[in-house]
Amino acid sequence: MRTIKLVIEYEGTRYHGWQAQAGGQTLQQVIGKAAEAVVHEPVGLHGSGRTDAGVHAIAQVAHFKTGSEIPAENLVHAINSHLPRDIVITSAEDMHDTFHARYDAVRKTYRYTMVERMTRPVLERNFVFRPKFTVDVERMRAAAAHLLGERDFSAFESKSDGRGSVRTIERLDITQDGPLTMIEITADGFLYNMVRTIVGTLLEVSRGSIEPDDVKRILESRDRCNAGPTAPACGLCLVRVEYE
Amino acid sequence: MRTIKLVIEYEGTRYHGWQAQAGGQTLQQVIGKAAEAVVHEPVGLHGSGRTDAGVHAIAQVAHFKTGSEIPAENLVHAINSHLPRDIVITSAEDMHDTFHARYDAVRKTYRYTMVERMTRPVLERNFVFRPKFTVDVERMRAAAAHLLGERDFSAFESKSDGRGSVRTIERLDITQDGPLTMIEITADGFLYNMVRTIVGTLLEVSRGSIEPDDVKRILESRDRCNAGPTAPACGLCLVRVEYE
Repeated sequence: MRTIKLVIEYEGTRYHGWQAQAGGQTLQQVIGKAAEAVVHEPVGLHGSGRTDAGVHAIAQVAHFKTGSEIPAENLVHAINSHLPRDIVITSAEDMHDTFHARYDAVRKTYRYTMVERMTRPVLERNFVFRPKFTVDVERMRAAAAHLLGERDFSAFESKSDGRGSVRTIERLDITQDGPLTMIEITADGFLYNMVRTIVGTLLEVSRGSIEPDDVKRILESRDRCNAGPTAPACGLCLVRVEYE
Repeated sequence: MRTIKLVIEYEGTRYHGWQAQAGGQTLQQVIGKAAEAVVHEPVGLHGSGRTDAGVHAIAQVAHFKTGSEIPAENLVHAINSHLPRDIVITSAEDMHDTFHARYDAVRKTYRYTMVERMTRPVLERNFVFRPKFTVDVERMRAAAAHLLGERDFSAFESKSDGRGSVRTIERLDITQDGPLTMIEITADGFLYNMVRTIVGTLLEVSRGSIEPDDVKRILESRDRCNAGPTAPACGLCLVRVEYE
């Protein structure tokens, strides 16, 4: 059996996330079926992690096992011909037997994009969140500094999956480009809703309802109630999954 | 009667253009109806020009007459509440009696965006065109130089509207940003399909089937058959309409 690694771009708007607990079409199902239509056998498609409903990916990674002899580069176009317009395989690669998209991932990067404008966004409406107040990048950066490094992020986790809440944020960059503000976070892993809760908290810091240094206390409290609201899914995009 | 100028952003994907000859939902209809729902009287909505099916706008301009006393700034949010997610009014302004969105426009700017990548685009699929060959910006720039200034653009017009084919291109910039190539054209006016035919011709120059200097001869031939194909609508966006 071969082990194939796929890199996948998708717009999450129409899907109930990568892998839903119940009801609704998921990315895992749609991509898994497309792969099965090509290799003519069941494939167990494993993603590097779940993305929520409405969350996008430029480079989600998944793997599956197959006995098919179709060369990896041909698999890209073959599977794409079975995928809808909002999903595309950008690469396929043969990996060693034990490669696992989830367990072998050592680092992931998410980007959250928000836009400041007087009226609702139209062209970018599915990919940005529009906060109702001015974005204060300096305050957000001061707050974000407390989140860097190895921390217990319980306060930024919507529900625990029982695998512990300690993660290491290696990088948290906040940049602006005209009306857009981008928050890009690289970590060895993310808890459920962690990026969106961090963004929601930084937005509360931005508007002044939380002070930048309070973020240290919120983190130490390990209590989700102290952090800000979960920012909307549409602004979030998985941009990179790294392996050794 | 007041004369109201609207600036409008829209994604053209779902519409049969600004104003269709027959069948299908048009932007003019949808925006006109939204305005009528607010001012409770028929409005004759006039756009600065027609955009084709699938063409987008960041700042289309239109005007209408009304006896309503609703302040212009309130009209923005009132009309937006009647518009679907792919259309938004970004500003409304009282103008002098004789203002006309089409006849008073002195300058327009369109942007055409293309992307080079191995697989079809997903996140930006409705807003870019993916040519099947490498984009050669230097060849395109050499060809574009022949199009600057006051010219008879008959060779770049899909069908004549009987108003003459002489227009003045003031600016034609070709820029790149990663995999994206943007062609931005400012002129005192555009013939039917003129931008898309110019882009289609520049792409033929890029791939080598037309030499940059041939564009001068194509222009002088005044024969549409000599120019390149009409580039797809989805890459095109009306970015600015200027008035005195």
